Amino acid sequence: MTIKRASSLGFCYGVRLAHQKVLDALKKYQKVNTLGPLIHNEREVKRLSQLGAIAINSLDEVSAPAIVLRTHGVRRDVLERVKKLGIEVIDATCPHVAKAQSIAQKFYNEGFRVVILGEVEHPEVQSILSYAPNATVVNENLEKFSFDKKVVERVGLLSQTTQPIEKLKLIASRMVELSQELVVANTVCFATRKRQEAAKELADEVEAMIVIGGRASSNTKKLFLALSSYDIDVYQVEGAADLPENVSKYKKIGITAGASTPEWIIEEVESRLKSL
Amino acid sequence: MTIKRASSLGFCYGVRLAHQKVLDALKKYQKVNTLGPLIHNEREVKRLSQLGAIAINSLDEVSAPAIVLRTHGVRRDVLERVKKLGIEVIDATCPHVAKAQSIAQKFYNEGFRVVILGEVEHPEVQSILSYAPNATVVNENLEKFSFDKKVVERVGLLSQTTQPIEKLKLIASRMVELSQELVVANTVCFATRKRQEAAKELADEVEAMIVIGGRASSNTKKLFLALSSYDIDVYQVEGAADLPENVSKYKKIGITAGASTPEWIIEEVESRLKSL
Repeated sequence: MTIKRASSLGFCYGVRLAHQKVLDALKKYQKVNTLGPLIHNEREVKRLSQLGAIAINSLDEVSAPAIVLRTHGVRRDVLERVKKLGIEVIDATCPHVAKAQSIAQKFYNEGFRVVILGEVEHPEVQSILSYAPNATVVNENLEKFSFDKKVVERVGLLSQTTQPIEKLKLIASRMVELSQELVVANTVCFATRKRQEAAKELADEVEAMIVIGGRASSNTKKLFLALSSYDIDVYQVEGAADLPENVSKYKKIGITAGASTPEWIIEEVESRLKSL
Repeated sequence: MTIKRASSLGFCYGVRLAHQKVLDALKKYQKVNTLGPLIHNEREVKRLSQLGAIAINSLDEVSAPAIVLRTHGVRRDVLERVKKLGIEVIDATCPHVAKAQSIAQKFYNEGFRVVILGEVEHPEVQSILSYAPNATVVNENLEKFSFDKKVVERVGLLSQTTQPIEKLKLIASRMVELSQELVVANTVCFATRKRQEAAKELADEVEAMIVIGGRASSNTKKLFLALSSYDIDVYQVEGAADLPENVSKYKKIGITAGASTPEWIIEEVESRLKSL
């Protein structure tokens, strides 16, 4: 059996960085808190909790000398409250999200009408929005969007980092005719797209694809869906234990993994396949 | 016979301003020069020349104590040469074009990669280009445009004032994926579009349309073409003398005129129609 990894898979840059920050903090303190589970991977979150990184859902639950803010960032008011806790704050906001936050703030300070492409309920968008409180969040009917007045002098447009570039192109195009000056900050992160494209590329070469990731991981689900149109067998697993019995029948197998899947789980699956 | 004017017709803002500047200059001097014919209307240019405004094609031909720079602007180097002539310089550059020039210069000074949507040979584009010498001029295959490198850090995009907004939307959309930061200055002037839309609106109400303008006037030609899909009779005339004999058969006639058609020619045509 030949086993091949997709050219891009697993932890993205932001997750890798956040994960490392937790490990570093655990060297310094016996226990740290993360504000919400660090990543959408139960097995890794469990492993981290055994090491001392305890996820909490509210600041009232803080029980450690350090707190980690996860990749998608926190609202400004939450950040202020966190700073007042008197414990060490480890900011693991993804650099792409932090950049989007600072661009939103810059637009806001310079008097732009700020427009954010994204899902208004998403924590990342909520965190960006807190830096440009009067911003407009758009996600659907982009071609028909309009302001309360016909033409706005200066529009600053940015995007939730995980939005498809096609949607940003569409809303930017619409904004051209609604503004005299338009600044578009391309804050779309290509990691998700790159991972999907690498998986599709590999799907052309193999008889089956194994998608590794947590059941709750949205980007893993999207990765699985992206492969559903291919005429091969596709399996989503959380680890080696989920591999189907008949997997030994394939001569060529491809592997991909979501942004929140750690290397050790990928290796676990790979080893099991090799042993067959 | 009912005669109705389109809600928008004749001189646009920039032409009106330039024309007034020539008349004002003629009050001060007996003779002025214009660098190129002031407008694409032979009859008005002839009338102005009889008043003392003489069109010249090169700075070597200057013969008056004042020179008028026409609406579409001049290249920076020509402006420098004009200033050294030692005669009064009357700058009648259209304010929309002047704004485009200054935006191009600002982009250039701030280190943007400057992109101009327009016809590279057009005098207006040449004048804008002289303020951002290394700019890229684009006009076709906008969706497939690419730079020498995959992604450019900062792009400044502007447009020749007479380009259709649809083309600016298209190239802006393409630039989103070719840049990290994109600034779009919407320098498209709506006068031409507004005039065309007003003519079409009126076409729905009448049996025939009269389009008044010089044979050499490009925007008059486009106005005529815009009406060609309507199931009514359309006539292009330079003045009352061109009106067809059978025009008296219509009960409802609409009138429109190009951006370079002076009010007195519109009135001349209107009077002749009323006298029928």
